[in-house]
Amino acid sequence: METQYDFKRRIYEVLEVSSIGDISSRAYDRLMTVAIIVGLVPLTQKGNNTLTLIIDISVSILFIIDYIARIYTADYKMGYKNYRAYIAYIFTPLALFDLLSISPVLYIFFPVSTIISLFRLFRIFRVLKLVRYSKTMIIIANVVRKVKAQLLAVLILIIVYIVVSAMLIYQLEPDLFDTFFDALYWATISITTIGYGDISPVTPIGRFITMISALVGMAVIALPTGIITAAYMAEITKKKSKYEL
Amino acid sequence: METQYDFKRRIYEVLEVSSIGDISSRAYDRLMTVAIIVGLVPLTQKGNNTLTLIIDISVSILFIIDYIARIYTADYKMGYKNYRAYIAYIFTPLALFDLLSISPVLYIFFPVSTIISLFRLFRIFRVLKLVRYSKTMIIIANVVRKVKAQLLAVLILIIVYIVVSAMLIYQLEPDLFDTFFDALYWATISITTIGYGDISPVTPIGRFITMISALVGMAVIALPTGIITAAYMAEITKKKSKYEL
Amino acid sequence: METQYDFKRRIYEVLEVSSIGDISSRAYDRLMTVAIIVGLVPLTQKGNNTLTLIIDISVSILFIIDYIARIYTADYKMGYKNYRAYIAYIFTPLALFDLLSISPVLYIFFPVSTIISLFRLFRIFRVLKLVRYSKTMIIIANVVRKVKAQLLAVLILIIVYIVVSAMLIYQLEPDLFDTFFDALYWATISITTIGYGDISPVTPIGRFITMISALVGMAVIALPTGIITAAYMAEITKKKSKYEL
Amino acid sequence: METQYDFKRRIYEVLEVSSIGDISSRAYDRLMTVAIIVGLVPLTQKGNNTLTLIIDISVSILFIIDYIARIYTADYKMGYKNYRAYIAYIFTPLALFDLLSISPVLYIFFPVSTIISLFRLFRIFRVLKLVRYSKTMIIIANVVRKVKAQLLAVLILIIVYIVVSAMLIYQLEPDLFDTFFDALYWATISITTIGYGDISPVTPIGRFITMISALVGMAVIALPTGIITAAYMAEITKKKSKYEL
Repeated sequence: METQYDFKRRIYEVLEVSSIGDISSRAYDRLMTVAIIVGLVPLTQKGNNTLTLIIDISVSILFIIDYIARIYTADYKMGYKNYRAYIAYIFTPLALFDLLSISPVLYIFFPVSTIISLFRLFRIFRVLKLVRYSKTMIIIANVVRKVKAQLLAVLILIIVYIVVSAMLIYQLEPDLFDTFFDALYWATISITTIGYGDISPVTPIGRFITMISALVGMAVIALPTGIITAAYMAEITKKKSKYEL
Repeated sequence: METQYDFKRRIYEVLEVSSIGDISSRAYDRLMTVAIIVGLVPLTQKGNNTLTLIIDISVSILFIIDYIARIYTADYKMGYKNYRAYIAYIFTPLALFDLLSISPVLYIFFPVSTIISLFRLFRIFRVLKLVRYSKTMIIIANVVRKVKAQLLAVLILIIVYIVVSAMLIYQLEPDLFDTFFDALYWATISITTIGYGDISPVTPIGRFITMISALVGMAVIALPTGIITAAYMAEITKKKSKYEL
Repeated sequence: METQYDFKRRIYEVLEVSSIGDISSRAYDRLMTVAIIVGLVPLTQKGNNTLTLIIDISVSILFIIDYIARIYTADYKMGYKNYRAYIAYIFTPLALFDLLSISPVLYIFFPVSTIISLFRLFRIFRVLKLVRYSKTMIIIANVVRKVKAQLLAVLILIIVYIVVSAMLIYQLEPDLFDTFFDALYWATISITTIGYGDISPVTPIGRFITMISALVGMAVIALPTGIITAAYMAEITKKKSKYEL
Repeated sequence: METQYDFKRRIYEVLEVSSIGDISSRAYDRLMTVAIIVGLVPLTQKGNNTLTLIIDISVSILFIIDYIARIYTADYKMGYKNYRAYIAYIFTPLALFDLLSISPVLYIFFPVSTIISLFRLFRIFRVLKLVRYSKTMIIIANVVRKVKAQLLAVLILIIVYIVVSAMLIYQLEPDLFDTFFDALYWATISITTIGYGDISPVTPIGRFITMISALVGMAVIALPTGIITAAYMAEITKKKSKYEL
C-alpha cells in the first residue's frame, strides 16, 4: 500500500511540481509544452490530411495518458483523499477543457461529424498554461486578475453600448443590414475602431448616428486602458515599496 | 386621510426604496428590469409585426402604470408636499424620458406616423437605471461623473478639431464630398481612427492634410484616455487610503 | 497728448483686457467671437457665392479694423513705447496669422487667383483664441503646453517610424504605390490605425512588413497617450495638494 | 609606438567622443548624420538610377572608411587591448548592422542579384543613432529600455492572441483565406484596430469570432499603453523628486 502511494506521489510530482532539481518533472513539462504547440499545428491547416492525422493521434494519446494520470492523482491535487476528490477534479474548468481537447480523437475512429474536429480548438486553452514560465507574464496576469471584475463590468458596459448603438442604427438605417446580428457586428467593428468598411452608413441620419456613437464611444473604450494602466501602476508601486524601501 | 398617505408611502417605497428586506420592492425592481429589456426587443426588428405589437402594448401598459404611480408619489420623491412637487417632477429629465418612452403606444391606436414609433428609442435611457445594481458600475459611474466637465471640454475640443479638419479637406479636395456634412462625417471617422474607407483622399494635397490631421489627432484623442486614467487612479488611491490605512 | 493716450489706452483695454466690469470690452469680445465663427461659414461652402461674398466682406472689414487697432495699441501690448514695438508686434505669430486671415479680402477686388481665397483657412487659428474662456480648456492647454517638447519629440519619432516603414514597404512591394509619397500616406494611415483600406498590401512580404510595422507601431503610438496621461495626473495631483492640503 | 597610439586615440575620439569643445568630432558627427539621411534617399526611389548610384557609391565609401576606422580603434572602444577586442567588436550588433549596411556597394561591381540592394535597408538602423542628440528622446529611450522586458512579454502575448484568433477564424471560416498566413495577417490588422477591410468576415460564425476577438483584444492592446504610461510616470516622478526636493 505504501509503495502504491509513493508511486502515486511521484506521478503527482512529475505532473504538477516544477522544482528546479526534479529532472523528470521538468522533462515532462517540456514534453507537454512541445505537445501543446505541435497539437495546434492542425489548426493551421484547412480540413484534415495525413500530417494532421499523425499529429492528432500522437498528441491525443499523450493527452489521454496525461488526463488519466491527472485523475489518478486528483486526491493529491484536491487535498482530500476520498472518491469525492476524483469527481470534484473532473468538474474543474481545466479538467473539462482537457477532456474537450482530447475528444477530437474520437472522430478518427468514428468519423460521424466534422464538428467534433473543432473540439481541437479547446487545446488553445492549454496555451494559457505556458504563461506561468515567465516572471513578467505573471505580473501581467496578476494585474489582469486584480481588475478582472472591473474589466468584466466595462465589457458589459461596452456590450450594452454596442447593443444600443446597433438598435439606433438598425431602426434609422434598416436597409444597411440584413439582420440585427449584422447591426451588432457593425457596431462592434466601429466602436473598437477597427472599421473594415464592409458595412458603412450612407444616409445622413445613419452617418450622424455613427458620428455620435464614435465620439461617445471614445470615452467608453478609454475605460479598459484606464483600468489596466491604473492597476499596472499600483502593481509597480507596490513592488517598488516592497523591495526598495 | 392617514390611510391614504400610508398607502401612498407604501407605493413610493415599492417604486424607489431598494432595501433588501422589502420583498415587494425587489419584485417590482425585477419586473421593471425584465420589462425594460423585453421592451427593447422591438428595436431589434425591422418595422412592426405581431410580436413587436404584443410587446409594445404590454410593456407600454406597465410603463404607463409606473409613470402614473411615480407622478402620484412625486411629493415623497421631491421632498415637499404641494402641487408644485408634481409639476417639478414631470419636468425632471428622467420623467421626460419616461413620458417619451411610453409615447409609442399612441401609434397603435392612431397609426398616423412611423416617426412616433422611433420614440421607443427613448426606452434605451431606462437601461442606464440598471447600472446602479453593480458596485463596479457605480465606481465607473463615479469616475465618469467626476470628469464629466473635462470629458465635455475634450469632446468640444475634438468636435472643433473635426470641424477644422473637415473645413481644410473640404476646401482643398472638394470633389471628394457631396456636402460639408460628408466632410464632417469623414473627419469624425478618420480622427476616431475607425477609417471605414468609404471616403478616402485621392489627391496629394488631400492625402497630405489627412496625414497632418491624423498625426495631430493622435494627441487630441489621447486626451480622453488620459483624463479617465487619471480619474480612475485617483478613485482607486482614495478607496485604498480609506479602507487600508 | 494726454487725451490721445487716454483714448489709446481705452482702445487697448477694449481689445485685450477682459475684466468682468468692462461692458465695452466684453461686448467687443462677443462680437469678435461671432465674427470668427461666422467667418468660418464660407469654408463649409464649395467655391464662392453671394452668401460667402457678403460674409467675407463684412467679416474682413471687421478684421481689418481690429488689425489696425491692434497695431495702433501695440506699444501697450509689447510694454515699450517706441517705433520698435510696432514692428515687433507685426512679426508676432498671432499678428502674422491675423494679416494672412484678412488677405482673402484682396481677391474680391482683384480676382487674380483662387489660391488667395484659401488664406481664409488662417482664420481657423483665431478659433484657438476661444479656448481661454473655459477653465477646463485652460487646464488641458496647460497640460499640452507642459509636454509640448515631449509630444514634439514623439511626433518626430513617429514621423521617423512612418518614413522607415514607408521605405521598407516601398522597396519590398513597389507595385502598390505610384510614388514614395503614397507609401508615406499608407504608412501614416496604417500606424495611426485608421486603415482606410484604399491601399493595402497584397504580397506575402508586403503583408509581413505591415504586420511587423503594426505590432511595433502599437508601442510607438502608446507614447503620446502615456505622456498626456502622466502630465494630466501630475497637473491634477498638483491642483489637489494646492487646494486641499 | 606612442605616436601611433596617440593617432589612434585621436581617431577614436573623433569617432565616438562628442565633447562640445572637440570641433573635429562634432564635424564628423554632422557629416555622418548627413550621410545617413542622404544614404536613405535611394530607398525612396523605385529600382536604381544614376542618382541612387552616385549616392550609393559616395555614401558607401564613407561608410566603409568609417567601418575600417571603427575596427582599427576597437581596442579603445571595448576597453581591453588585444586581438580579442577586434573580434568581439565585429560581432557586436551595431558593427554587424554597419557591415550589412555597406554590403550593397558590392552589387555595383558585381550586379548578380537585386537582393543585395535590399541590404541598404540596414542603413535604417543607423537612424537610431541620431536619437542620442535630443534630451527628450533620451528620456523616451530610457522609458522604453526600462520596460523592454514587459513590452516584449506583451508582444509575445499579443502574438499568441493573434495566432489563436487566426486559428479560430481559419477553422470556422476557411473560405475567407488562401493560406494560414493570410489569417495571421487578418488577425494582426484586426487586433491592432487598423482594419483595412481587404479581408473581412462574411459568415455569421466568422463575424461572431471577429466580435469576440475584437472585444477581448481591447484589453490586450491596452497593455502596452498601460505599461508605457506607468513607466513614463515613474520616470517623471523620479526626475521631479531628484531636482525639486
